[in-house]
This record gives sequence, structure tokens and C-alpha cells, in this order.
Amino acid sequence: MARPHVGIWLIGAKGGVATTVTMGLIALKNGLIGTTGLVSRLPQFEHLDLADWSDFVVGGHEIRRVPLADEAMQLAVESRIGSPELVGRCKAELEQIDERIRPGTIQKVGPTIAKLADEDIPDRETPRESAQRLKGDLAEFIAAERLEHVVVVNVASTEPPADAADIPARWSELELLLSDSQKCPLPASSLYAVAALDCGCSYVNFTPSLGSTPTAIDELAGKRNTRHAGCDGKTGETLMKSVLAPMFARRNLKVLSWVGHNIFGNLDGKVLDDPINKQAKVSSKDHLIGEILGYRPQTHVSIEYIESLGDWKTAWDHVHFTGFLGTPMTLQFTWQGCDSVLAAPLVLDLVRFTDLARRRGQTGLMTFLASFFKSPLGVKEHRFDRQFQMLEEYLI
Amino acid sequence: MARPHVGIWLIGAKGGVATTVTMGLIALKNGLIGTTGLVSRLPQFEHLDLADWSDFVVGGHEIRRVPLADEAMQLAVESRIGSPELVGRCKAELEQIDERIRPGTIQKVGPTIAKLADEDIPDRETPRESAQRLKGDLAEFIAAERLEHVVVVNVASTEPPADAADIPARWSELELLLSDSQKCPLPASSLYAVAALDCGCSYVNFTPSLGSTPTAIDELAGKRNTRHAGCDGKTGETLMKSVLAPMFARRNLKVLSWVGHNIFGNLDGKVLDDPINKQAKVSSKDHLIGEILGYRPQTHVSIEYIESLGDWKTAWDHVHFTGFLGTPMTLQFTWQGCDSVLAAPLVLDLVRFTDLARRRGQTGLMTFLASFFKSPLGVKEHRFDRQFQMLEEYLI
Amino acid sequence: MARPHVGIWLIGAKGGVATTVTMGLIALKNGLIGTTGLVSRLPQFEHLDLADWSDFVVGGHEIRRVPLADEAMQLAVESRIGSPELVGRCKAELEQIDERIRPGTIQKVGPTIAKLADEDIPDRETPRESAQRLKGDLAEFIAAERLEHVVVVNVASTEPPADAADIPARWSELELLLSDSQKCPLPASSLYAVAALDCGCSYVNFTPSLGSTPTAIDELAGKRNTRHAGCDGKTGETLMKSVLAPMFARRNLKVLSWVGHNIFGNLDGKVLDDPINKQAKVSSKDHLIGEILGYRPQTHVSIEYIESLGDWKTAWDHVHFTGFLGTPMTLQFTWQGCDSVLAAPLVLDLVRFTDLARRRGQTGLMTFLASFFKSPLGVKEHRFDRQFQMLEEYLI
Amino acid sequence: MARPHVGIWLIGAKGGVATTVTMGLIALKNGLIGTTGLVSRLPQFEHLDLADWSDFVVGGHEIRRVPLADEAMQLAVESRIGSPELVGRCKAELEQIDERIRPGTIQKVGPTIAKLADEDIPDRETPRESAQRLKGDLAEFIAAERLEHVVVVNVASTEPPADAADIPARWSELELLLSDSQKCPLPASSLYAVAALDCGCSYVNFTPSLGSTPTAIDELAGKRNTRHAGCDGKTGETLMKSVLAPMFARRNLKVLSWVGHNIFGNLDGKVLDDPINKQAKVSSKDHLIGEILGYRPQTHVSIEYIESLGDWKTAWDHVHFTGFLGTPMTLQFTWQGCDSVLAAPLVLDLVRFTDLARRRGQTGLMTFLASFFKSPLGVKEHRFDRQFQMLEEYLI
Repeated sequence: MARPHVGIWLIGAKGGVATTVTMGLIALKNGLIGTTGLVSRLPQFEHLDLADWSDFVVGGHEIRRVPLADEAMQLAVESRIGSPELVGRCKAELEQIDERIRPGTIQKVGPTIAKLADEDIPDRETPRESAQRLKGDLAEFIAAERLEHVVVVNVASTEPPADAADIPARWSELELLLSDSQKCPLPASSLYAVAALDCGCSYVNFTPSLGSTPTAIDELAGKRNTRHAGCDGKTGETLMKSVLAPMFARRNLKVLSWVGHNIFGNLDGKVLDDPINKQAKVSSKDHLIGEILGYRPQTHVSIEYIESLGDWKTAWDHVHFTGFLGTPMTLQFTWQGCDSVLAAPLVLDLVRFTDLARRRGQTGLMTFLASFFKSPLGVKEHRFDRQFQMLEEYLI
Repeated sequence: MARPHVGIWLIGAKGGVATTVTMGLIALKNGLIGTTGLVSRLPQFEHLDLADWSDFVVGGHEIRRVPLADEAMQLAVESRIGSPELVGRCKAELEQIDERIRPGTIQKVGPTIAKLADEDIPDRETPRESAQRLKGDLAEFIAAERLEHVVVVNVASTEPPADAADIPARWSELELLLSDSQKCPLPASSLYAVAALDCGCSYVNFTPSLGSTPTAIDELAGKRNTRHAGCDGKTGETLMKSVLAPMFARRNLKVLSWVGHNIFGNLDGKVLDDPINKQAKVSSKDHLIGEILGYRPQTHVSIEYIESLGDWKTAWDHVHFTGFLGTPMTLQFTWQGCDSVLAAPLVLDLVRFTDLARRRGQTGLMTFLASFFKSPLGVKEHRFDRQFQMLEEYLI
Repeated sequence: MARPHVGIWLIGAKGGVATTVTMGLIALKNGLIGTTGLVSRLPQFEHLDLADWSDFVVGGHEIRRVPLADEAMQLAVESRIGSPELVGRCKAELEQIDERIRPGTIQKVGPTIAKLADEDIPDRETPRESAQRLKGDLAEFIAAERLEHVVVVNVASTEPPADAADIPARWSELELLLSDSQKCPLPASSLYAVAALDCGCSYVNFTPSLGSTPTAIDELAGKRNTRHAGCDGKTGETLMKSVLAPMFARRNLKVLSWVGHNIFGNLDGKVLDDPINKQAKVSSKDHLIGEILGYRPQTHVSIEYIESLGDWKTAWDHVHFTGFLGTPMTLQFTWQGCDSVLAAPLVLDLVRFTDLARRRGQTGLMTFLASFFKSPLGVKEHRFDRQFQMLEEYLI
Repeated sequence: MARPHVGIWLIGAKGGVATTVTMGLIALKNGLIGTTGLVSRLPQFEHLDLADWSDFVVGGHEIRRVPLADEAMQLAVESRIGSPELVGRCKAELEQIDERIRPGTIQKVGPTIAKLADEDIPDRETPRESAQRLKGDLAEFIAAERLEHVVVVNVASTEPPADAADIPARWSELELLLSDSQKCPLPASSLYAVAALDCGCSYVNFTPSLGSTPTAIDELAGKRNTRHAGCDGKTGETLMKSVLAPMFARRNLKVLSWVGHNIFGNLDGKVLDDPINKQAKVSSKDHLIGEILGYRPQTHVSIEYIESLGDWKTAWDHVHFTGFLGTPMTLQFTWQGCDSVLAAPLVLDLVRFTDLARRRGQTGLMTFLASFFKSPLGVKEHRFDRQFQMLEEYLI
């Protein structure tokens, strides 16, 4: 098909991950970079009829007003993501995309994120008004670009954890609460999900925020014949955990304690420096060890904002375990990865696979995408190898 | 069954691994230790009719004359394997087993190993004479203990690499060479294999030495309705490689270089300090990365004998890889494991699974044991998770 | 001199450090161990007339009732400090010393420490009554053992930070407050210091607790012609900082951030798991980097209680720095040390050097001991090499 | 002084270190970069009358013909040294300097270095002819630029170790050998030294090659009233050793083994991949541990050429030591530094300090520069802190 016909709508469209996704997509379209890091470009998936780079149009929501090309340049200069020269070659397209980015919402995002918002972000809407406005933006995007399908991907900063107990299990009940700013428990990430699903878009939650987690929202996806997946992209330290914990399990080595210490200095890190926002992230990074091992060793996850590191996440993990004869032994690893660079290709993969799922008629929860997430919705399997098999089995 | 009826015959019966196997088995029989580290005691294998600890009798071949109980005490004191108190409680049984250990052979083991041998080790036998003598020892063991089945496990020091090209492909031809000390290319590990298989025992090669690798010896196993497996137990750094390399492959992250630096100070390390012996080990530790990734990044493996570390192998690995946008990133790990403690339970697992295979009528190469080996005979799959599935599929 | 005549009085006499000091001293007296780890046994200090191991008698205060020999055995079994066999050989002497241990005080130690206290620890004394009682114990010790000199060393758990602003600068004023349980700001560590100095003993504070830090208590030391030193023994990660930070300074490499992550599982770690107690420790571990560098990079220190590690402190430090042309580079280190084993010989060194200082007529603050402390009283020099020169210059 | 009047003559003028020195100097002159990494810009040396950046003119010898600006661009692109933009701004000056670079010599540099040489490098000169030619180049440089003083700095690749025993102790005898290509034992580095000193230039050897090490050459320096220093810049792993080993010594902690594993991928690394060249380097990196500790623990240094790392040297060191009660403990560090970036400012420091020494009338060996070298000529002190005091004492 000659004309771009699949939309990628990024929530947090000027953040590090979204900017890297956008830059990367432009660079891929123009043959400026290779396909390293893209799961959807593995040999075993080559025969699949996946959308091509030129099939995509990008838009999004954002709460900060900064020019997208400036963000891209800052990532290149400060965190060595791409290069100033590459940003230069992509600048015109970045500016075009920038025009498709609309003001987001800061409903229940917590004070640390709210502080980042530009003054023109509406702060007196009811949840329903916010959802309507966001839906309007999506509808306009679809119409303007004559799109067959839009995948909305949440790559915004982590919200404080929401209390799932407050959320009605049925969509009909939850829908009623939208008018009531006091009682409606949905944070921004879920309002974006509701807006997306309600107008037939697919929704993917790459963050630990609530998003489409509530059953009521899953019900909405079913009703609208669309699909969703989440939560929380598995890119670095947690990916390592989901790869290494099965090794200890299969060798019957008993993990006594697993400590993970993460340091990084991007905007995400700044938001996570607020203990309330951090809580959601830590819990998402921590739970899987017990679930893979079948018992709960002492675990500890810390995340510290160290400004000088920029987008470079360094994680030190210390695993203390015993083997035969009760002998204690140790495994340590240090992961030095660039967060946005690890996340961005996965976002593109998720979009391509989601688009394929749509053409295959899949609706509801896309559990076959579990290997991409720290806390995959609807899936108890946390071993990376088995999750990857789920992906291969669905696709091939 | 009340009476012990399965023999474990250890080649290198007083080395670190064998001593830990023997100590561990005694301790397990007497309920002195738990089952951590034993794959065959995982919940998913619980329903299998595996031989029990009390079903086993231990014997073996060795080229050094030192008392087994002294070796056990040295491991406890110098390398914290078990404890002096535990050795004390197992001493009587260790002394009993010591009486079943017979002089081994030093045919083509290279000068570094030969130097360790006691003077009473015959050094003028033809290969055929050696094989006959070893077979005699096994026959005597079987008769004396009235055994149904013996599993011979090679846990001796690593021999220099043998030239496989010199070895005839048919057993009938190889058999003829045994009389000729000059032309017979078989090293000790293969003579033990020949002796074992020829009298119906099972044979497992836990080292990178040649052992039962030649097709002619596999043919012998078939002829005698018995079975074998190998090579080179996968216990530490290489286990990590077979767990981590698939992660890079599945995420389409391109490995630029993989450096592994191993330091340890046990007898094995001393033998590997001889560059000729080291060569076999390094090659066994190194090849699988390229095989898993499907391309050959620069790799480097070094093994250094550092006396103060005793049996504690410390491995530092440095993986340099690129992700999206060609961004270079790094993973480092440090593995601090006790070699014999990691190996010993796997030897017991191999014996139990091999014994089950015998009762199931399996003959020839036991490929389902691939997950235990660095260089599994007859298996091209090096991803640990898939190898483990092969094990589960065979057993369950 | 034939008869032991110098007392070592340990505050927290059954804690990990004190038990290791006591065990170690008995072992040294009896020639059961070498002198590794003892600064006072370096060649350059050999000619000094330092007290010998047989010159010492040990006593102390403690708030837990557990037998000292049991503590020693637990350290041997759980944390590999010494060995069960060594504890066995020292048991009789440990039991003798145990009889000289008196109930301590829990004035202002915070709830986490108070919870550890045995029921017979008085909890309704005024500070003056506590001080009197402690002094009585010391006087009895001196008389019973006919001692020339006693060095009181605080090796108890870390108290919550005290507010120095509340403490009068003059001893005459502070002394008046002792009768008033409400207004007296002194925590246990300072009451022990007051008791010690008031009856002419020397006092050394090996912890970050307040101890003899207040000027009023320094004044008391002067008045009684005795001497004191502190605070907070420099044994592991902070020692490394005081050794490495000068390297960055001297090479004009700019430290951007210095992150230290400490994990360990002893009683001290349990107490530090209380954020109030942890605060004192973190601040003592953190400040010296800025003081050595002359500017304040971002620093972070975390301390986590990981039970499985016992007395084995593992510290991971990540130093991010720039060099020429603004190039960012990284140094990481992992320190795996046994806390009590690192601390105990330093306590013996401090006692020996303090005893020498007494014979040399030194009174007041012993600044020449700065190299032993994270926060040396009265000394701004934090570079370990320069502090060590202060020691050598005083002694030689 | 308005006019540049001090020459910097770099041996290996287009290698990584020299290119970074040259780029850095241009950038400093033009205020494009800060002074991080420059020891001579520390506050304590601010009052010294050191030559300014604009006082320097750069020239040099080289055996490869590649344009200097291309080398600089490659360092920027491949190893992130400076940036393409910075190279762009320095290009005109780099090209000017390139015109002052003359063909070097490959006398006794070993086959690996010789292979890198351009075809126009003379290979049939006698040592005397080479020395004469090099001297001519220096004389021309001095005349053309009307220089008061030239400091010749060897930053070329490491030569195979020379046998010092073959070298006569007196200059008069060594001088005679220059005519005899067979008997003259001097490698290129020493011929450069002879040429430099003989025409009154200062000479600094930043490599482990022989350079001015022979006493006969030191004698020449004295005769010509000039000065020299070396060997082997102490920039990374060895700097760490000279900082950490004194800590173990001062705390009486007994080092059992010290293993250092170095990986990097620049031209230097390629040359060191030749075992003969490597030998000189390893020995220079290894000896100081025993010299600082006063006993010889087992040490091991490996250096591996890992192409993907470019100029980024990663060193992993593992220190195994015992403390009190014979308890074994471990320190590991990972140093990730950019070799040329660490070396270049030290070269500029050495030039500035050497120039000051000249004005102060110093001749012969400059021992006060010991802190800059792995194997400081004429100095037995290897502790970095004491070496740095020697520098401060000389300068202040």
C-alpha cells in the first residue's frame, strides 16, 4: 500500500522514549539506520505481513510545550542517543510531527508530574470532559490522515499507584463516574485508554501506570471490537531478572536475596524521585522474582535519580543463593543501558504486532505480547523464554 | 528395594568434584543436608521413579593415592565445602568407599596430569591392557556389590585436546588399534569409556576430554545396549552464557564482543594452567555464543590459576552490544561460585536420569541431557531454556 | 610487666564487633592467630612500647543477656568469623569475661535499639543515676582487676542523631542537666563517655552516635586529665572513599556523582533499617567526598538490611566523572568485607595507641587517630594518606 | 611573552594520545574546552609561572602517513573523544601542525609496529643515520619556529622489551655502537631520546619502551645540560593499583592475589596483541604491587585486544586479601576510561612542568615527576600519594 495508513499516537509524545521512537521511525523510513533492537525484524518474523515503516504516521498527546526537535537534539547531545547530525537530517519531519501533538491531561497524575505541565494544559475539566477532548483529538487525527487503524501507546511518566479497589468492575458503572471529578478514580493513563478504546483505537500501556488494567476498561475494549496490552515495558534490569531467575529455579539453586539498585538521570527518573510515583515502579520491578521462583526470597529494589547519568540507566544486581551442601554463592551484574534506546524499538514492535493482531481479528487482551512487559496483563508466566515462545506461537 | 543396587563409578574419584559427590551422597543418605542444587529433586520430577540415595554404591578410579577423607577435610577447611564437622560424621563411610577406589590410567593424559600420578599407576600398558584392567575393576565392583547397573562418570582433570581426525569411524577398526601403543589415539578418558560401555555400564563424560565423543565409541554403546552422554558439565560461567545469549538474540541486540575471564585455584585450575590442557576447556566454553547468536562476535575466554581462590571460581564477563540507533551498551557480570559444589549435584542428577533411561530401555546417545553440558554430544541446541525443555519433555 | 594492667571496656560488649575483639584478643594471647589486620603491628610501629596482648583485661556494658560464647559461636557458624573450633578453644576465657559484663543503659537510644534490651535493663533512671551506675561499674572493674588504665570503647549500635544545638557548650551547665530526664539531651553513648571520662578512663567512640562529640564533654576530658577520640570507625566503603577521592582530586578529574549502595544483615544492619538510626550513619558515610574534593558532586548512600548476608557487608560504588575534553568515564567497585573482622583489630589498635598516649601524657582530643574514623573529631583532613601520616608523625 | 616559544615534539604524532594532545591544546588555546584532567591547573599550582597554551608549537615524528585531522575525526566518531563539531573547529590548525610532522624510524620496533609503517619510512639506515636524521628534524623545528626549548614526548606504540644487559653503561661506549646496525641494541624510542637530548631538548618517555632508561643516555642528558623523565604514563588501572595497594599495606591487610584484566581496542591494543610487545607493558603494570606491599602476592595482568571497545579501556581487578582471624575478603573494581583522554592532559602537564624545570636550571633525571609514571626512573616510591607529595614539594 502506497499511502501511510496506520497511526501511532504517543502519550507523552515529547518524552525520551517517544522522541526516540519518532526519530527512529523517521531514520528507518529514510534508511539512515539499521534494524538492531527491533524484535519484529528477527528472521523468524520475516515472513509476516507486518506494516512497513512508511505505513506509519505519528501524532500524540503531551503536557509540555517544548519543540520536539529540541528534545531530540538534547537526547543526542546529553545522552548520545543518535547524533546531532542524525537529528539534523530528521529535523523537518520532526517539526511536521510536532504539529500533530495535542495538549494532554493531568488528571490524577500527582503533583510531581503536574508541576511539569505547561500552563495551557486544562486543569478544571471533569474526567468526562478530558476523555471527550482526547477522543476528539484522535478522531481528528484519523480523519486528517485517513487512517485505517491507530495504536495509542502510553510512554508518559509513571503516575502514583491507583487504588484498584475503588474501581467498579463493569464499564457501565465506571462510565457513570466519569462526570464526577471527586469520585472518578481514573488517572490520566486510564482516561487516555478509555478515549482510545472508545473510538476503536488499539491501546498499549508501556508504563506501570493504571492505563487499561481495570476489568471495566477491558470490557470496553471488547465492546468496541478493539484490543489492548500492558503494563510496563521490560527493557533492562527486569528483563535480566526474568532471564536469570528461571536459571536458578531450573538448577534448584535457592535464592536467599536479590537486591537491585538502579540509578539514572532522565525526566522519568526525576518523576520517580517522588516516593509516591516510585512505588508503582518498584512494585512492577520486584514481584516477578517470587512468581518465577515459587517462593519469596528477600528482595529489594531501589531507584535513585542521579542527574549526571542522563538517560543511561545503570543497574547493579546482587543475587545471594545457596547450592548443594548449603553453600552460599553470589552473582552480581551491572547493566549499563540507554533506557530510551532500549524502549523505543519495542514500542515500534508492539505497534506492528498490534496492527497485525487487528488484521487477524483479535480483540480484547493481547496476552501474546507478555514478553514485552514487566507486569503482563492477564498472564502469570514471567519467564522470558516461555513468554517469548508465546509470541512465536501466536505469530508463526 | 532394600539393597543398594546401582553403582556410581567415578573417574578421578578423589578430585574435588568426586569427593563432593561422595560426601554429598553420604550426607543425603543420612539426612544431614537438604536437596538444594539437585535438578532431579525439582517438583516437576517428583513423580518419577528415580533411584533413591540409599540405592547407590560408590567406587572409582584414581591416579593419586591420598586418602579420600583427607581430601574431603581439605575441601571443607580450604574451600568451605561442607564443614569439618560434616566430614567428621561421614568419615567412616568415606573410608569404606576409599577401599573401592582402584588405580586409574594415564594413557595420553599429557605431562601435567601424568606428573600428579602416584608411582604405582602402570605406565607401560598398551591401551588394550589398560582397558582390560579397568574393565576387570568394573566387573569386580558389579560382582562384589551385586549391582544391576553401573554409571561411570568422568570427573577427572581435563586432558589435552585429541585429534578426532585420527580416530577411525567404526568400532571394529578402532578396536584393532588398541594393541598398538603408538597408533592408538585414545586418551585415558576414552579408554574408561570403552571399558565401561564394553561391559554394559553407562558412561557420562562431565569433562571436555574426548571420552565417548568418537562415533566408533557411540557405535560400541549401541552394540552393547548401553548408553552415554557428555561433554563438559555446564555449571557456572558457561551456564550464564547459555542463559544470557538467547536474551540478546531474542531482543535483536547485536553482540559486538563477549569477554570471559575466569580465575580459580583448585587442582583442575592447576592442570588448566598448562596451555595444552587449557585449550580443550576454552574451546568448550567459547563456541556456544556464536552458535546461539547465529553470527560470530569477537569472543575471548581466559582461565587463570590463582591459588588463593581454591575451589571458588570467579568469572567476570563483559558483553559489549549495540541496540537501536547503533547505540553501544554494556552488561557485566561477576559469578562467584564454588565449582565442586555446583558440579556435584549435577553428577548425581545425571546418574539418576541415566539410570531411569536404562529402565526405559534407552540405548545410545542420551541427548535429553543436553542442558547439563557445555558441548552436548549430538545436540546443536545451546539455549539453556530449550535444552531444559528437552529434559522435561523426555522425563514427563 | 607480668600482671594484666590495662582494661578494655566495651560498650555493646556482646555485639558483633565486641565479640570479635574479645575472641581475637584471647586468640592473640594464646598465639592461635596471626596479626593480620592490626595497624599497631605494622613494621614501622614495632619499636614502640605498646601494651602487649597479655596486658589486657576485658569487661563491658551490654543491654542483651545472651551468653558471650553463644554470640561468638553464632558469628563463627553464620558469618564465618573465626571457626567453631577456635571458639571452642576460647570458650573458657569467653565465659570468664562474660562475668565482667554489666547491664548498660538505653537512655535516648531510640525505640529500635530499646526493643532489643533485656527486661532487667533499668528504664526509669535519670541520666545522672545512669551515669553514676555506669561509673560504679567502671570503678569496680578498676579495683577488682587493679588496673592502671581503662579504655572505654563504644561499639554499640548506632543511635538516632542527637541535636547538638540543644547541648550547652560548658561542662558546668551540661552537668546540671543530668538530673532532668526531660531536658538532658544526652543519649546513652554520651552518658557512657561522661561516666568513663569522669572517673579518669579514656574514651573512644567507634560509632556515629554522639558519644564525646559535645565540647562540654571534651572539656570534662581535659579537667580529668584524660583523653578521647571518635567518631565512627572507617572500615570498608568509607575507607575506600577516603582513598579514592584524593586520586580524583589530584588528577583534576571532576566527580559528577558518587553513589554507594551498602547491603548487609547483622544486628547493626537491623538497627539501621530504622530510618532514624540510619540517618546518622548515612551522613557520616557521605560528607567526606565533598570535603576531600572541595566541591559537592551529587552523592547518594543507601544502606539496606539484607538478612542472608549476615556480617558480610557488600558495597557497590559507582563514580561518574569527567576528564579532559569533558569526557564522562566511570569507576565501579564492589567491596565484600566482613564488618566485625575489619573493625575488631582497629579497636585493639585504638586501645593500644590510646594507652601509649596516656603514658606520653596526652590529654584531650587525640586527633592523631583521625585515620581510624569516618568523622574524626577536631580534624578536617579526610584524605586517608594524610591522616595516616598524622598517625606516623605522632607515633614515630 | 607574545610569541609561542616552547616546542612540543610528539613521537607517534598521529596516534590516539598525540592526536588528543594536539586537539586538546588547540581547543584550550581557543577557549573551547575546560581544564578538567590537567594536573598543572590544580589550585595549588596556580601561582607557578608555567607556560601558557599559546606559548606552545606542536610538531613530531610519525611512521604512518594518514592526515592528522582524519585521525582526530575518527577518534571523535568511533571513541567519542571530543566531538565531530570540535574537530571541525580545530581542523585548520590540525592541518598546519600536520605539515610539521616528519617521518620517524622503525629501528628495532618489532614486526608488529614495523608493519604499520608507511613505505617511505627509511629502513636501511644505521642507528647513527637515523639519530642524525631525527636530530636534523628537531634542529629545523627549533630554527623555523625560533624556539627557546623543545620537549620531546614519546607517545608511540610499545616496543618489545630491550635487553638492558647489552647496553654499555657509559655514553662514550654506547655512542660508538651507533654505527653498527647489528650490535647497537637501541630501539627507536632510545634513538629519539638520544637525538632529543643530544641537541639540548628535554625528553619524556610516556611509554614502557626503553627510551632514556639506559644510564648511558642519562649521562648524555647531564652532559648536554638537559633533562629527561619516564617511563610509562600512569593513567588508569595502574593508577588505581598505586592508590589502593597502600591502603591494604597501611591497614595490615594481607593481599593474597591481585588479578587485573584489561580489554581495549585501539591501535595500542593491536600492537600489544603481539605477545612480545605485550611483555613490556605487563611487566610495567605488574611490579609495583609487590614493591608497595613489601611482599609478593600472586599477581596476574592480562591485556586483550577487543576491537569493539576502541579507545575505551575497561579494566576489571580482583583483589583477594585476608584480614583479622585470617578471614578472606574481596575487592573488585571496574575502570571504564578513555585511554587517550586520560593520557593527553598528563602529557601537557609533563611538558609544562619540564619547561619549568628547565627555567629552574634542573638537569638530569626529573624524579619529581614520579606520580605520572608506572615505572618512574630513579624512584622506588610507588605509592601515588607520596609521589604526589614529591611533586608538590618540588613545585611549591
